[in-house]
Amino acid sequence: MEKFVVTPWEVKGKIDYDKLIKKFGTQKIDKKLKNRIQKHTKELHVMLRRDVYYSHRDLDKVLDDYEKGKGFFLYTGRGPSGKMHIGHLLPFVFTKWLQQKFKVNVYIEITDDEKFLVKENVKWEEIKKFAEENILDIAAVGFDRKRTFIFKDSEYIKNIYPLVVKIAKKINFSTVKAVFGFKNQTNIGMIFFPALQIVPTMFEKKRALIPAAIDQDPYWRVQRDIAEKFSYEKAACIHSKMLPALTGLDEKMSSSKPHTAIFLDEDEKSIRKKIYKYAFSGGQATVELHRKLGGNPEIDVSFQWLKFFFEPDDKKLKKIEEDYKTGKLLTGELKEILIEKVSKFLQKFQENREKAKNYVDDYLYHGKLARKMWNTVYE
Amino acid sequence: MEKFVVTPWEVKGKIDYDKLIKKFGTQKIDKKLKNRIQKHTKELHVMLRRDVYYSHRDLDKVLDDYEKGKGFFLYTGRGPSGKMHIGHLLPFVFTKWLQQKFKVNVYIEITDDEKFLVKENVKWEEIKKFAEENILDIAAVGFDRKRTFIFKDSEYIKNIYPLVVKIAKKINFSTVKAVFGFKNQTNIGMIFFPALQIVPTMFEKKRALIPAAIDQDPYWRVQRDIAEKFSYEKAACIHSKMLPALTGLDEKMSSSKPHTAIFLDEDEKSIRKKIYKYAFSGGQATVELHRKLGGNPEIDVSFQWLKFFFEPDDKKLKKIEEDYKTGKLLTGELKEILIEKVSKFLQKFQENREKAKNYVDDYLYHGKLARKMWNTVYE
Repeated sequence: MEKFVVTPWEVKGKIDYDKLIKKFGTQKIDKKLKNRIQKHTKELHVMLRRDVYYSHRDLDKVLDDYEKGKGFFLYTGRGPSGKMHIGHLLPFVFTKWLQQKFKVNVYIEITDDEKFLVKENVKWEEIKKFAEENILDIAAVGFDRKRTFIFKDSEYIKNIYPLVVKIAKKINFSTVKAVFGFKNQTNIGMIFFPALQIVPTMFEKKRALIPAAIDQDPYWRVQRDIAEKFSYEKAACIHSKMLPALTGLDEKMSSSKPHTAIFLDEDEKSIRKKIYKYAFSGGQATVELHRKLGGNPEIDVSFQWLKFFFEPDDKKLKKIEEDYKTGKLLTGELKEILIEKVSKFLQKFQENREKAKNYVDDYLYHGKLARKMWNTVYE
Repeated sequence: MEKFVVTPWEVKGKIDYDKLIKKFGTQKIDKKLKNRIQKHTKELHVMLRRDVYYSHRDLDKVLDDYEKGKGFFLYTGRGPSGKMHIGHLLPFVFTKWLQQKFKVNVYIEITDDEKFLVKENVKWEEIKKFAEENILDIAAVGFDRKRTFIFKDSEYIKNIYPLVVKIAKKINFSTVKAVFGFKNQTNIGMIFFPALQIVPTMFEKKRALIPAAIDQDPYWRVQRDIAEKFSYEKAACIHSKMLPALTGLDEKMSSSKPHTAIFLDEDEKSIRKKIYKYAFSGGQATVELHRKLGGNPEIDVSFQWLKFFFEPDDKKLKKIEEDYKTGKLLTGELKEILIEKVSKFLQKFQENREKAKNYVDDYLYHGKLARKMWNTVYE
């Protein structure tokens, strides 16, 4: 009996991340591997230190390639089905860190086709609008303008279609049925789509490293089954846990339930209101009880958000944890810490987003990598 | 028990065309409909007079639209899997005639993607080469350069992908399984492809009239189920019988069996050799017997080719038929008539093909309709 479900289109229940490693047949990112990364990056990103990125396939081979001078490239993406929230943004923040440290190309696929295909009652115009907005959000993260290509499937299709068709030829319905749970009622666009998500893993004759939430892993399993038939490398990936919803660790942030998430366009007032009202607390029912019994940081969403990303200082986080456990730190005070962190982060982000309007086209069309990509046809 | 099989990828056995009308639920092109066409075209094309184009869906509605001034457009195509033979060419000759008579736009889809997906062990480079050669063959037919757009799926995909995705969203695996006989082993490119073949029926907000061999009908059945959901018209079609193979009426010309067909690049010597050696004869075993018993034009491939297309003069054909039946015309003499007709036709065709090299780009890129199409994105 599975108590949780994890597919690219459905995440349900409290995810047992250790079980997922077994189920998907991936490897833990262990101390040894972290040390090996740190040898090259000097510091370790908070999301690596805290095991947010916790599982991988072939990350060791990526490091082999890097150390041998062959190099690698990064690939990630976004399905533009709505406004982006903080949970959507963090993988891009992490990917940018990897790019900075390893000086590699980043390809970001905007799967406008897939989001249109999977969502009922959505208009193509809406998907287009969200794609533009999301691209600006991603641009605001500050990727290297010479080494980053952001593309929409619906536009870049002309440069990749022959390779997409080659990939599609190697995948049959049995496979996508087994891997993605497709049914006879699944539309033929969705059935075809895995070929589109796989193609960027073949943008270079190097290994692709894909930082993504673990729900995307099924695509890479299919890619790894077929890549070598075309003399491309099997994709490597590092999987992250999902930032829990404000409303609790068993939930996933969802754009359709705005109170579960904090969106990238929210201001301090709105952030404060949401965190106070909805952030699930591990504290006690009254101040008196809390002072006496202490809180439980393990189930406290505010603490978990600090741990995931917002308090990168290990010592400070440790102190917050201790103080909360002992009842010295009250729930309201813990929430205030998170509110300040998130507000500052988003204020800076929103400033960057305004500036990004001036250079977003570098990622899409005019930057060094973008220009090269528009001049390349993948056959 | 079906004794014959007709799908876009398989035609087996002696086709019972009357049964196909029942099986596919189409209508006969009857005398009344022919008269209605003739009212506009003055003459009737030999392939209409002789019931080579014998079945239709909504041809009457196309004529309604034409008479009301709304108009219609023509759509046909070619899968570039090899050299073209005469059987491949005739639908284009007929489509050109319709264009001349009705002064309408013609869209010709080159399904390079589908041919790559369906053929095992074929290289993309080969498909590309055949596509170029086939496009030149089609250009040689002499379509109106201002009103004709020839496009390869792999190139034009960029202008149609959003609409393709919309179409794909309306079709599920159950449907393509039932209509095309797709299986769990079918690759996901083939499963998706029907959306590509349907999209040109939506190039104009008018009715598409599709002249095609009846084996392509399954695509139009799917189109007709979904078109009105997008406020497009249901496609109309006229179905042709298939030009029989040289080797007999139960066979289909096949590029993989060169002796069954005459290719567009053959010269008189080669044509003569093939027709003498392979054209299935309805004559008797000896001249004496033939003079005495006469031949059977019904099963004689040379006679059938003259009837299909190569002897458009009804009186001359009638005389040939009578003379053959009575034994006055010998098999060799009948073959000579066909050889002369086919040789002259192909000699002229080959001259036109040389000339077409100068203007093939009008159909692809520079002609009035082609320019308009490259400036249009279908969403």
